[in-house]
Amino acid sequence: MQLSVIKIGGNIIDDPEKLSVFLQNFTDIQGPKILVHGGGKVATEIGLKLGIEPRYVNGRRITDKQTLDLVTMVYGGLINKQIVAALQAHQCNAVGLTGADGNVLPAMKRPVIEIDYGYVGDVVNKDINHQFVAQLLNMGMTPVFAPLTHDTHGSMLNTNADTVAREIAIALSHSFQVQLIYCFEKKGVLSNPTDDDSVISAIKKEDFQKLCAEGTISGGMIPKLENALEAINGGVCKVIIGHANDIHQLINHSGGTVIC
Amino acid sequence: MQLSVIKIGGNIIDDPEKLSVFLQNFTDIQGPKILVHGGGKVATEIGLKLGIEPRYVNGRRITDKQTLDLVTMVYGGLINKQIVAALQAHQCNAVGLTGADGNVLPAMKRPVIEIDYGYVGDVVNKDINHQFVAQLLNMGMTPVFAPLTHDTHGSMLNTNADTVAREIAIALSHSFQVQLIYCFEKKGVLSNPTDDDSVISAIKKEDFQKLCAEGTISGGMIPKLENALEAINGGVCKVIIGHANDIHQLINHSGGTVIC
Repeated sequence: MQLSVIKIGGNIIDDPEKLSVFLQNFTDIQGPKILVHGGGKVATEIGLKLGIEPRYVNGRRITDKQTLDLVTMVYGGLINKQIVAALQAHQCNAVGLTGADGNVLPAMKRPVIEIDYGYVGDVVNKDINHQFVAQLLNMGMTPVFAPLTHDTHGSMLNTNADTVAREIAIALSHSFQVQLIYCFEKKGVLSNPTDDDSVISAIKKEDFQKLCAEGTISGGMIPKLENALEAINGGVCKVIIGHANDIHQLINHSGGTVIC
Repeated sequence: MQLSVIKIGGNIIDDPEKLSVFLQNFTDIQGPKILVHGGGKVATEIGLKLGIEPRYVNGRRITDKQTLDLVTMVYGGLINKQIVAALQAHQCNAVGLTGADGNVLPAMKRPVIEIDYGYVGDVVNKDINHQFVAQLLNMGMTPVFAPLTHDTHGSMLNTNADTVAREIAIALSHSFQVQLIYCFEKKGVLSNPTDDDSVISAIKKEDFQKLCAEGTISGGMIPKLENALEAINGGVCKVIIGHANDIHQLINHSGGTVIC
């Protein structure tokens, strides 16, 4: 049976009108589906009001204890429950989850090597409780994941939403034919970053190195595609990268960039 | 099959050490169980930092939009997920839920008669998705409820935790023999409010009016006992009121006040 795992990021979450349209479109997707959401500006805004200044080392956000509580509140509470309530209004029977709920995503606090990232979790794929997620799907429910995991010793952990989506997609490949859809602010991977219509329709595993070497893929697209390739290597059938507005085209493979 | 529905309030939630001891004791309770938690000072503290002043009319807190977002974050995110992560550390397979998740607690926004309470939800018992909660219990999981409901039109709503516990206990009486345990800061209902050891061991339905009339039950105990009696009328086998520290005695009926 086919399962769609769809990840949305800040560009949709920060815009109530776009989010509302997306959630209606998401509801209309047939068959079992999972939504993974990222953070958004709202966490930073609330953090600043609470006197929590974002701290970065080498361009990477550090999750200190205060920031962990902030993201637990905002990702796991505010954003997650607003999405769940909106989906319920569309008759989509959503269940909001973090990785602690049902022990779905046990994680290792990232070891300190050169940088102490703080309360950041690295998911151990073999430990994912995919059986519980599959049971929810088989009950006709739609899991909605906040990008949070836990260390199994009593602490929540912060985990990148692209990674959460990838790990869930891989783990659910035990029970479903999974397609993983990464929504972002572009229509797909562009061959010319200044031309929004230059979407590369398909990228094969073996093309990735070449596209990086020639500079077609660069910057933030590199980790996104690395995530996509890791998902494929882990058993996911197909990864599609595109714009949240085009979710139906992405699902039907008439838009975005397909990685397979 | 017996099910224990246990409600804890701010006096435990605000004290990390007491909460930790309680969650260990809670884990040790045999058989299916549900935890319902209230708020706590942390919501007010975070609210004040965010510039959200509590507003009261006739001594009742008003839930304006800002306050709704605050309690959604703090109850549904911070407190709920910290409890779930702690229970997971004790090998209790907890799943944190609000009333929007799985459409468990659809509610009506309280109609404005004399006072506009704002985003406050009154649960409609017949609409509770008790089947989903029963499925989770039958899967060996422990639902942990934040005191939040939803209006089925896209908005979360704030609901008193005692009420949430009562409504869940009543609805689960379809599938289980339910005992409802209200934990608070006293060892039980006291016959002499100045003597902590004057616990009334049992109150029968028919005694309630008399105890109120003679002033033995007064103040905040009245709504708590009204909740208890409503639970009994709704099909709950037994309601026990006592201190969270004594949870094992309460479960085993060797402490607290039993209402039946």
